[in-house]
This record gives sequence, structure tokens and C-alpha cells, in this order.
Amino acid sequence: MGSTPAKPRIAIDAMGGDHAPDEIVAGALRATEELGVEVLLVGDPQLIRDSIAQHTHSHQLEIVPADGVITMIEEPLVGIRRKPKASINVAIDLVKRQEARAVVSAGHSGAAMAAGLLRLGRLPGIDRPAIGAVFPTIVASKQVLILDVGANVDCRPQFLEQFAMMGTIYSKYVLGIPDPKVGLLNIGEESSKGDELAVRTHQLLQDNPEIPFIGNAEGRDVLSGRYDVVVCDGFVGNVLLKFAEAIGSVVLQILREELPEGWRGQMGTALLKPNLKQIKQRLDHAEHGGGLLLGVAGICIISHGSSQAPSIFNAIRLAAEAIENRVLDRIVSQYQEISQQS
Amino acid sequence: MGSTPAKPRIAIDAMGGDHAPDEIVAGALRATEELGVEVLLVGDPQLIRDSIAQHTHSHQLEIVPADGVITMIEEPLVGIRRKPKASINVAIDLVKRQEARAVVSAGHSGAAMAAGLLRLGRLPGIDRPAIGAVFPTIVASKQVLILDVGANVDCRPQFLEQFAMMGTIYSKYVLGIPDPKVGLLNIGEESSKGDELAVRTHQLLQDNPEIPFIGNAEGRDVLSGRYDVVVCDGFVGNVLLKFAEAIGSVVLQILREELPEGWRGQMGTALLKPNLKQIKQRLDHAEHGGGLLLGVAGICIISHGSSQAPSIFNAIRLAAEAIENRVLDRIVSQYQEISQQS
Repeated sequence: MGSTPAKPRIAIDAMGGDHAPDEIVAGALRATEELGVEVLLVGDPQLIRDSIAQHTHSHQLEIVPADGVITMIEEPLVGIRRKPKASINVAIDLVKRQEARAVVSAGHSGAAMAAGLLRLGRLPGIDRPAIGAVFPTIVASKQVLILDVGANVDCRPQFLEQFAMMGTIYSKYVLGIPDPKVGLLNIGEESSKGDELAVRTHQLLQDNPEIPFIGNAEGRDVLSGRYDVVVCDGFVGNVLLKFAEAIGSVVLQILREELPEGWRGQMGTALLKPNLKQIKQRLDHAEHGGGLLLGVAGICIISHGSSQAPSIFNAIRLAAEAIENRVLDRIVSQYQEISQQS
Repeated sequence: MGSTPAKPRIAIDAMGGDHAPDEIVAGALRATEELGVEVLLVGDPQLIRDSIAQHTHSHQLEIVPADGVITMIEEPLVGIRRKPKASINVAIDLVKRQEARAVVSAGHSGAAMAAGLLRLGRLPGIDRPAIGAVFPTIVASKQVLILDVGANVDCRPQFLEQFAMMGTIYSKYVLGIPDPKVGLLNIGEESSKGDELAVRTHQLLQDNPEIPFIGNAEGRDVLSGRYDVVVCDGFVGNVLLKFAEAIGSVVLQILREELPEGWRGQMGTALLKPNLKQIKQRLDHAEHGGGLLLGVAGICIISHGSSQAPSIFNAIRLAAEAIENRVLDRIVSQYQEISQQS
């Protein structure tokens, strides 16, 4: 007779982020109630207990003590070495020791990356891990995974090739896209277009039979729904990510300014309020979970520093899906297959 | 007694762009009526005459014959050499021979740049001309000039320093900002952040007393209204430009989808229709004229290929303002001053 499979165990950095620990705990609680996961809250036990006490239910929340947190002003490598017991380090150690399958943190993203890299190491075949972010597209049912959005600058072409590989696997097995299409962020259609990195990467992607590369993706096509994965250097990726996050606010601001007070304006706005809420949801990054650190030997979701409970909930959901769909195993297998063939 | 100053003469590539020559002619006509400029329409005389004939007024439009056009699929340098009488070449020659003060083209932007560079040459002190684009910001009264948005990839730090200088001058003397603030597009606040280009450029900008540099501008801050000028490599600039252009459409599309049919939706939409039009105007690139090629010895406005009459009108207006405010002279003087000081 079968037994009930164990619930996935997810370590949460309870001290990282602008709204820690209260919003982190709130999101984690909801995740245990709705997602069938077990959560380990890592950080100052007393502060965590105080947060939990604000809620009526507190089952299934394990507390793992940590001492200190890497602040936003610290240099990542310095910080994680100086504070070995900081919440992010302890959380990642849980994954290293296989006491948890994934880490979620809304703290210093550089520190999360550095800790992930140093403590978990890279997956075989990967030179550099990348942070992938999932964006909505103009096609309501489709999303696009963009990577790297900030882990690496001054990339080499082979890094982008690896991003494409990992992105394809993630898209297939976690986002559930049977036949993902990969694009290279670039400034024109032709293979000769772009800076040196883009031109050389284009060639690598074209020559790699494992990568479903369909060509260059210009800035205007990234959110077209034509691509399931778009690869780029972390510098332009981060600029685009931050710009896209802000543009939602800019547009909503313009909407607010151009929808004036007065009879016409108020009535019109009141009628449309539910729709405006929908619009906000589609544009709002909070709905889209966090950035996934792809390429380290452990699942790490790096959430926005301003994350509140809904974002934390979504990040945990992302982690659960990555675990359930065995994304790490698949990346490792893919590279083992390749090295066996060559 | 003073005499009426001569009207500025502006050469228009009548054959360049998706809607040439009809929309080009229409925009040019309106410009002569409203802006106090003289326009030279460059291209196939018969086609231009046929376009003009569709309008009741046709005064003050000079036709300058040209033979051929550089198409979007041609390699710029090859095209402009093979077709010396193409409309863009002839238009730029008018500026070279000082028969016109500026060129406006909605044709192949690479060809316009190449022709400008080859025929007009660079201003003294400038290594590479840049294309500058003016964006709206979250502050209704403020705009931001971003350059380079596509003329150069793989820039060196000193190119960006020159972009900053030209951008500051343009901002002051054409956009009328008395005290422009310059930012460097980057992925973090600290001077140590960014790729190699950004780190080295940051240093140059900080050390240059002529440049009102206030620090790094992250993707989320570009449209904040905090900066009047933002400098970047043409690769990331072009990605951002194309992305921003598309995002307006994406948001409007989401708006349309989320404003449903039916009693509530239709009534609400009808009431808000005038406001939605305003919103579209603020987001619409057509309102913002074209990209200005800064750094060649002549004023060149490179408009979007899809430009119709309103965009062409705005591009001509930009050209007239650049002429009136003597932007080229000022860039040249600035560099003469600097070289005299050193």
C-alpha cells in the first residue's frame, strides 16, 4: 500500500526584506494552509514567535534559530562570511543538509545569490547561475521567463547558452509549456545585429540542437507572447526588470491623474473600479512571485525586498512547483546527457 | 531697422518610412503652416506632387529631386554608397551644402546615421554620435532625454561621457531646462555597481566638472522625473526604447481587455473616453517627435518608421527648436572651451 508522500519542506528567511518578519510569517502561514507544504521559518525565534502570535492558526510552522541578518548596505560576500549564522546562511544550510528542499528570501538578493553559490555550489555544466523572472505578456494566458535579470554582468556567450538551457527546462517542467520557444534579447532581427555578446551568443544558440531557439527578441517583442524564454546579460536584464516594475506604477499614476474628479470622472471610475483592480493585478509584480536562482544545487527563490504576504505566498508556491517538477534533477540530467553524447 | 530673419529651412526625406510620401507630405504641410519653417521635400518629384495635390494648400513646399530610397532590408553603408542619389543622401547633402539647416527622416535609421556620419562628419570632440530620445516621466511637466538609444554598441566610457555632455547642452538650450541633472543608467546605486562600462563611466562623469552628474539611475528611476538626461550604451538604450514603446500598447491592450462589454463596461468606457485619449497621448511615442542624432555636424531627426503626419510634424518642430537654439554651435563651443582649458 502506498504512503502519503512527505510534504515539501521549504526554508524561509524570516528576517530578510522591508516587511520582515510579520509579512513573511503571514505569507508562510497561508502557504502551509493552502499549498500543502511545510515551512521552516529561519531567524530570531522571539520575533518570529511574536509574529505568529498575531494569527489564530499557527500549525505546521517550524522555527529554526538564526543570529543576524545581511542588511541591504552590506557587501554580499563580506556579509555572508562575517555573519555565518545570519538568516539567509542558516536557511541555505538547511537545503545543503537536505533538511529543506528550497529557500525563499526577500532579503539582500546579492547575499542570497552569494550564499547559494558558495554553500550549494553550481549544478554540473553551469558556469554561472542566473536569476530568472516571469513576466506577463500581451497574451493573457502566456508568460515569459527572462534570464538573467541581475546575477551576472559582463557575461560570456556560453553563460547565455546555459541560461537558455536552464530556462527551457524550467519552462517545460515547472511552467508547463510543452514546447517552449527561446529568444535572445537583441536590437534587431538579423543574426549580425547587436553587440559582440549578442552576435556570438546568437551563433551558439543556433548551433545548439537542444535549445528551441527561434531568433532575436527586440525590446518590443519581449512581452509579445511569441517567446516563452528570453535570455540576456544580467545588466540589461536588470535594467529591463526594474523598468518594467516601475512602468506599471507610471501607467497607473497617469491613469489616476487623467481620471479627474467631478461627476463624469467619479462615476466613470466607480463603474470601472473592479476592472482597474484586475488591471493592477496583471501589471503588479507582487502577483508573479519572485526571481528564481537557476543553476545552483538547490532551489532558491529571491523575492523583491518590498514583498508582503501575497508575494511571499507566491514565492513559496513557485518553490513548491519547482520541487514537485524536479527541475534541478532535470537540469543535471540534461547536462549529463550532453556530456555523454560528446 | 531689422529685417525679418529667414525662416529655417528643413530638408525632409519624403520617401523614407512606411507611410511615405503621403503622411510625410501631410506632416510637412502642417509644419509650414504652423511652425514658420520652410520645408524641402526630397524624393521622387511625381510621387511628391501627387501627395501634395491631395491637399488644398501647397505653398512653401520646395521639391528637391532624388532617385531611390534606402530600404529597411539594406545594409546601411552598402545602401548609401550604392545609391548616392537616394532621398536620405540628397537630403543630408542639402545640409552639408548649407541649403538646409536640418534633416528629418522616417526611413532606415541606420542609413540616416551612416549618411549623417559620412557626409556631415562628427563635431569636434565627439568620437561617436548618439541617438537621443525624449521620454515622458511620472511628473507631468518633465521629460527625460535618454542617449544613446541605438547608434552605438560596445561603447567605451569616454563615448558615454560625450553623450552626457551633448545631452546636457541639448537639455539646457533646446528643451529649456536651466539646470539639467544627468544620470548614468545602471543596476544599483553605488559607484561600484554595474558592468565594466558602467563602473568606468561613473568615474569619468564624477570627475568631469562640466557634467551635472547626480549618480546612477536604475531602471525604475529613469522615468521618475529626477533626471533630465540619462546616458547609456546604445544596446541597452535601444532595448529600453523598444520596450517602452511596446509597453504603452501592452497596457492599452490590457485596458481594453479588462474593460468588458456589457452595461457596466460600455457606460463606464463611454464616460471615460476623453480621458483615455489623454492617457494614450501621454504614452504615445508619436507625440514625442523623433530621435535626435547628436554629434554630427548637422541637425538630423530620425523618426520612427511607422511615423504618420503628427509624428512628422513633431519631428520638424524638434528640428526647428534645435536650429533656433543653436544647439550645434553650443556643443562645438563647449568642446573648444574645454580644449582651451586643458
